[in-house]
Amino acid sequence: MKIKIINPNTTQAFTDALQTLGNAVCQPDTEIVAISPINGPSTIESFYDEALAVPGVFEEIIKGNKEEGVDAYVLACFGDPGLYAARELTSKPVLGIAEAAFHMAVMASACFSVVTTSARMRFMTEHLVTRYGFDAQCKKIRTTPMRVADLANSPDEAVAKVIAECISAREEDHAEAIVLGCAGMSPYREKIEQAAGIPIIDGTVAAIKLCEAMVGMGLGTSKVLTFNWPRPEMKTN
Amino acid sequence: MKIKIINPNTTQAFTDALQTLGNAVCQPDTEIVAISPINGPSTIESFYDEALAVPGVFEEIIKGNKEEGVDAYVLACFGDPGLYAARELTSKPVLGIAEAAFHMAVMASACFSVVTTSARMRFMTEHLVTRYGFDAQCKKIRTTPMRVADLANSPDEAVAKVIAECISAREEDHAEAIVLGCAGMSPYREKIEQAAGIPIIDGTVAAIKLCEAMVGMGLGTSKVLTFNWPRPEMKTN
Amino acid sequence: MKIKIINPNTTQAFTDALQTLGNAVCQPDTEIVAISPINGPSTIESFYDEALAVPGVFEEIIKGNKEEGVDAYVLACFGDPGLYAARELTSKPVLGIAEAAFHMAVMASACFSVVTTSARMRFMTEHLVTRYGFDAQCKKIRTTPMRVADLANSPDEAVAKVIAECISAREEDHAEAIVLGCAGMSPYREKIEQAAGIPIIDGTVAAIKLCEAMVGMGLGTSKVLTFNWPRPEMKTN
Amino acid sequence: MKIKIINPNTTQAFTDALQTLGNAVCQPDTEIVAISPINGPSTIESFYDEALAVPGVFEEIIKGNKEEGVDAYVLACFGDPGLYAARELTSKPVLGIAEAAFHMAVMASACFSVVTTSARMRFMTEHLVTRYGFDAQCKKIRTTPMRVADLANSPDEAVAKVIAECISAREEDHAEAIVLGCAGMSPYREKIEQAAGIPIIDGTVAAIKLCEAMVGMGLGTSKVLTFNWPRPEMKTN
Amino acid sequence: MKIKIINPNTTQAFTDALQTLGNAVCQPDTEIVAISPINGPSTIESFYDEALAVPGVFEEIIKGNKEEGVDAYVLACFGDPGLYAARELTSKPVLGIAEAAFHMAVMASACFSVVTTSARMRFMTEHLVTRYGFDAQCKKIRTTPMRVADLANSPDEAVAKVIAECISAREEDHAEAIVLGCAGMSPYREKIEQAAGIPIIDGTVAAIKLCEAMVGMGLGTSKVLTFNWPRPEMKTN
Amino acid sequence: MKIKIINPNTTQAFTDALQTLGNAVCQPDTEIVAISPINGPSTIESFYDEALAVPGVFEEIIKGNKEEGVDAYVLACFGDPGLYAARELTSKPVLGIAEAAFHMAVMASACFSVVTTSARMRFMTEHLVTRYGFDAQCKKIRTTPMRVADLANSPDEAVAKVIAECISAREEDHAEAIVLGCAGMSPYREKIEQAAGIPIIDGTVAAIKLCEAMVGMGLGTSKVLTFNWPRPEMKTN
Repeated sequence: MKIKIINPNTTQAFTDALQTLGNAVCQPDTEIVAISPINGPSTIESFYDEALAVPGVFEEIIKGNKEEGVDAYVLACFGDPGLYAARELTSKPVLGIAEAAFHMAVMASACFSVVTTSARMRFMTEHLVTRYGFDAQCKKIRTTPMRVADLANSPDEAVAKVIAECISAREEDHAEAIVLGCAGMSPYREKIEQAAGIPIIDGTVAAIKLCEAMVGMGLGTSKVLTFNWPRPEMKTN
Repeated sequence: MKIKIINPNTTQAFTDALQTLGNAVCQPDTEIVAISPINGPSTIESFYDEALAVPGVFEEIIKGNKEEGVDAYVLACFGDPGLYAARELTSKPVLGIAEAAFHMAVMASACFSVVTTSARMRFMTEHLVTRYGFDAQCKKIRTTPMRVADLANSPDEAVAKVIAECISAREEDHAEAIVLGCAGMSPYREKIEQAAGIPIIDGTVAAIKLCEAMVGMGLGTSKVLTFNWPRPEMKTN
Repeated sequence: MKIKIINPNTTQAFTDALQTLGNAVCQPDTEIVAISPINGPSTIESFYDEALAVPGVFEEIIKGNKEEGVDAYVLACFGDPGLYAARELTSKPVLGIAEAAFHMAVMASACFSVVTTSARMRFMTEHLVTRYGFDAQCKKIRTTPMRVADLANSPDEAVAKVIAECISAREEDHAEAIVLGCAGMSPYREKIEQAAGIPIIDGTVAAIKLCEAMVGMGLGTSKVLTFNWPRPEMKTN
Repeated sequence: MKIKIINPNTTQAFTDALQTLGNAVCQPDTEIVAISPINGPSTIESFYDEALAVPGVFEEIIKGNKEEGVDAYVLACFGDPGLYAARELTSKPVLGIAEAAFHMAVMASACFSVVTTSARMRFMTEHLVTRYGFDAQCKKIRTTPMRVADLANSPDEAVAKVIAECISAREEDHAEAIVLGCAGMSPYREKIEQAAGIPIIDGTVAAIKLCEAMVGMGLGTSKVLTFNWPRPEMKTN
Repeated sequence: MKIKIINPNTTQAFTDALQTLGNAVCQPDTEIVAISPINGPSTIESFYDEALAVPGVFEEIIKGNKEEGVDAYVLACFGDPGLYAARELTSKPVLGIAEAAFHMAVMASACFSVVTTSARMRFMTEHLVTRYGFDAQCKKIRTTPMRVADLANSPDEAVAKVIAECISAREEDHAEAIVLGCAGMSPYREKIEQAAGIPIIDGTVAAIKLCEAMVGMGLGTSKVLTFNWPRPEMKTN
Repeated sequence: MKIKIINPNTTQAFTDALQTLGNAVCQPDTEIVAISPINGPSTIESFYDEALAVPGVFEEIIKGNKEEGVDAYVLACFGDPGLYAARELTSKPVLGIAEAAFHMAVMASACFSVVTTSARMRFMTEHLVTRYGFDAQCKKIRTTPMRVADLANSPDEAVAKVIAECISAREEDHAEAIVLGCAGMSPYREKIEQAAGIPIIDGTVAAIKLCEAMVGMGLGTSKVLTFNWPRPEMKTN
């Protein structure tokens, strides 16, 4: 099967990292294609950035449906930008990485905390947790004083901050798993897990495996009503 | 004060109706400016439409801040498209019409139902009700078998359907006020209220009056964190 | 229009302050009348006080309806004493100041905390937050070790305590606006806001502006069922 | 022990019925004293009535504490009028009959419905269910087209309506117990239970038995903070 | 009446303590029979232990129904193991001690905290609080670094830890009552209450008194549907 | 990888059907082993049945860990019996079929209804929905007047009833996917889907695919606290 990872920002280094990550975790018969839209913000750190990234996501889904034979889509930004709209554009599965990480966290543990980047992301993350129904299982949203770009520019320092928050989550929040709240943290997942002594869940990996699971059981996006094609002529598969 | 009503779709007839409506309900010293973005969907009946309308909303807010001396903004589409992002772009009040209608409904009544257009809008409306905290006070979301355009093309029939749902809401849901779930229903508010025997709340009117209230007490959008400017250089007022 | 501010306690100094405050924030064509009932407790710091204040509130509403041509009522005590009963006694808007402040806070910010007086008020305030649907948006209820009277007797010290809590709310609760949980704090709102660096919302001001908004759009209290006249002969307008 | 049943309305016939009921269900060593305040509404069918009944309730609690050696109090009106304030006035247990009935219902069954009198009581009852935490276990609030007085004037017809609602609750709501939502229904509890084939819980009986239980384990009202004496000089026991 | 206290673990010393406790608090005409199943875990400190204890509980209920003329059952382990299944096996009341303690706590106070044993019990206790509807009234679940056996082996040290947590609950959580989260703490209830200055509620005592209350009003377990006999031939009373 | 499906009841025909189903949906390199415990109830239609099935489930997990090299476990009964306890017994993933089906349903659709067997299952299913956090997304739990055994004895009639409920769920509940609430319905999933015109999700298939996903990303059960081994000597992998 073919899974398309859409990195909604235009930073190619992140996209390349997602391709590498996807190749490492997918099944032997899964093809991973990680891309960025041509236009859009270079990072997503506000609702405004998120909204600007969405039209590029749509283009990639429409192209994936019409031209590329894609079987499932991963939206690789922790805000799950445009998720519900993206589902309208295809009958294939579309998973956001926040959503995917939360589902995996509650199947693997009694409760979890989220460790994300700047304080500004707290409100957005709270909304995601509530929207998907994980209020009771999410113990706390922890932010670290960093920008997304710090993960690329000074990774050692940034990762040390993340590890410190993961340990606090385990000891103070009584969390039993951690969801990484930024796709940029993905390459450091294993290192963080070993240092913090608690399962660390990366949303991109979670979304890829959940896409494989859905495709494997013939499950796509229900077109019964809400996520039906926006206009009949858009129907592609 | 100057209030800018942004009709996120590009149907000028709706925009003209909003201008008329705004002129009728505003305070004597309030100037109402209703506009549509140049680009965007002609109606909004899906998450996809909504997302496509958002960049045009942003342009109008940025222009309102920099060039037009706007004091407050109304997003005149019941999905409140791009509301949180729009708040990042200004320190002035920005109100969605769904949000505004819900606030007015609970100050005026024990509980309310929403009467909106097609069944597809139910899920989106449920999300709004929950996000704003009105789950306990909103008795039911009622949909009518119509498209937004029907309100313009065959208003008598469409309005009759709305009235029937309002009466059912009063009798079956035990609702004590009705929120109209579509900006296109605004011109018929009074007629519906008289026929249904229950207060009918139009979100655009509600949002205008709430903008006046906020401006009147010197209250804008808090820039403390979440709704701070997306990038420092965007700061305009 | 005429807005009657009912201070449910009998301390005339508070009532005078409310009159001054109301005059300062109302529209040019709004007349503010602030009064206290003749009988009732001098301050309200318990459920018992609150209940004893309610019959006096009723008298003022009945008089306002029958004799004074009042267009809207503000109950200027943070517990919103007798709010639902008061709504039964008139078809005009009746707003409590807690309710009004919460509505304004969520239209202006991502989330808020309440700063109120003594610890004993916590439970009552929690109930108000929940009853009106603001559990998700209210981050914390903070109390200060003071009695209501301290605001009059040693205002500098009392205000300093309030400011300290507002700063803690911003830094520790991640609140982005503050609701003042006592009508006695109203005169210091601006000073607190400047010192704490976060929007401070006073419920009396909020309620006045919301009354103007409701009256301005022809919206009163729905008499459909719950808030209908207690007995038919009581109907006055 | 001595349990004082306070019927907040002034209809002596109801008070006499409560005395009879209390005598029938109390333990051999319990003395039941059912009274009405001297002043107050004759029935309670609105928030206004309820608020007017509260000062009389206070007098009876203060007298019970100071002069009568009362060990526990029952507020015998389904709205639990003035419950929290009443708790401030004594260190003894004070139970409302709505509260008591809900507690008993969930200990005896998987879920329950409430059958109360006029439609106007729905909102008040919803608030009670939510305030006490029984949202998940309360399936539905059913109202009957009657006034409280109908229970006295045409009991056969009124009781038949109640029975019909209880059967609907069992069959349509999947309720497994019924809470009677009016103290005036108490004398007919057994008859209703036999006709409807489902456990019927009367709040007055429930409150008496729960008072006995609390007194029997030395449990009163916690005076730690919220329900402490309103003023130190009021402390009586 | 005869109340059977089932201690789901097989530690006879705990069972003896429950018998003594029950004798001390029951009504004169109540007979208390405290037993342990023959087979089962010696203490219950995991979901696994709890599940293994359940078949023994069933045997004791079936025997109580058929041979012993029992009028009500208390499950004396704070996890309320097998509560819903146990209710299927009898038409008599069956109360868990967690459930019973929560009900008593909210009738006696504005809000409560739980003080239980090891950190591992937190998740299980959270589930109980939520399942029974006490999320709003339960301020915090506090754990102490001890095993259940420590209460027997080094009671002074264990009790001192419990007292310290109760004081923290009062001061930091603003709790106004404490629920003891382990049947092994029962003998120290009075000592803890005096030291901590806050009402301390023991679930076993609460359950006995609530059983007496239910039996006293003729209320058992509703057999309407969910808790009906698992198989018709099991019906015993 | 090796996935062990534990059918908690002892009806071998159901177990054989699960083996067939598992073989059909698993990845090429997955080995499915479906078993029943030696002792336990023949069907599970009450809390009592469920509790009696749990010890047999434990034995199969312990054996799977120690002797069989199992990589993940599926509990194939819709009540997810003993799920949390089972997680204590292994560091591998353990998924209940109710849980698994709900997760898949919300990733594939806007909202879902459950169609299960007898009315008695409603309460148990409500608890599962709430415990896992799906209250907002689950529109309704629909029951059919049948016993589990009817699915084997008169499948045509039973399946027709299920199809009718699925259609009602789509039309009346506005559900956009259906979760089958009984493992015995699995063989008819495709037939039901075609007849009802809505995605039908079978929990056993969902659980198998989610186990593959978890194992594929190296995710097991967090042993940080709650699901740690009940006793240290039980640690097997």
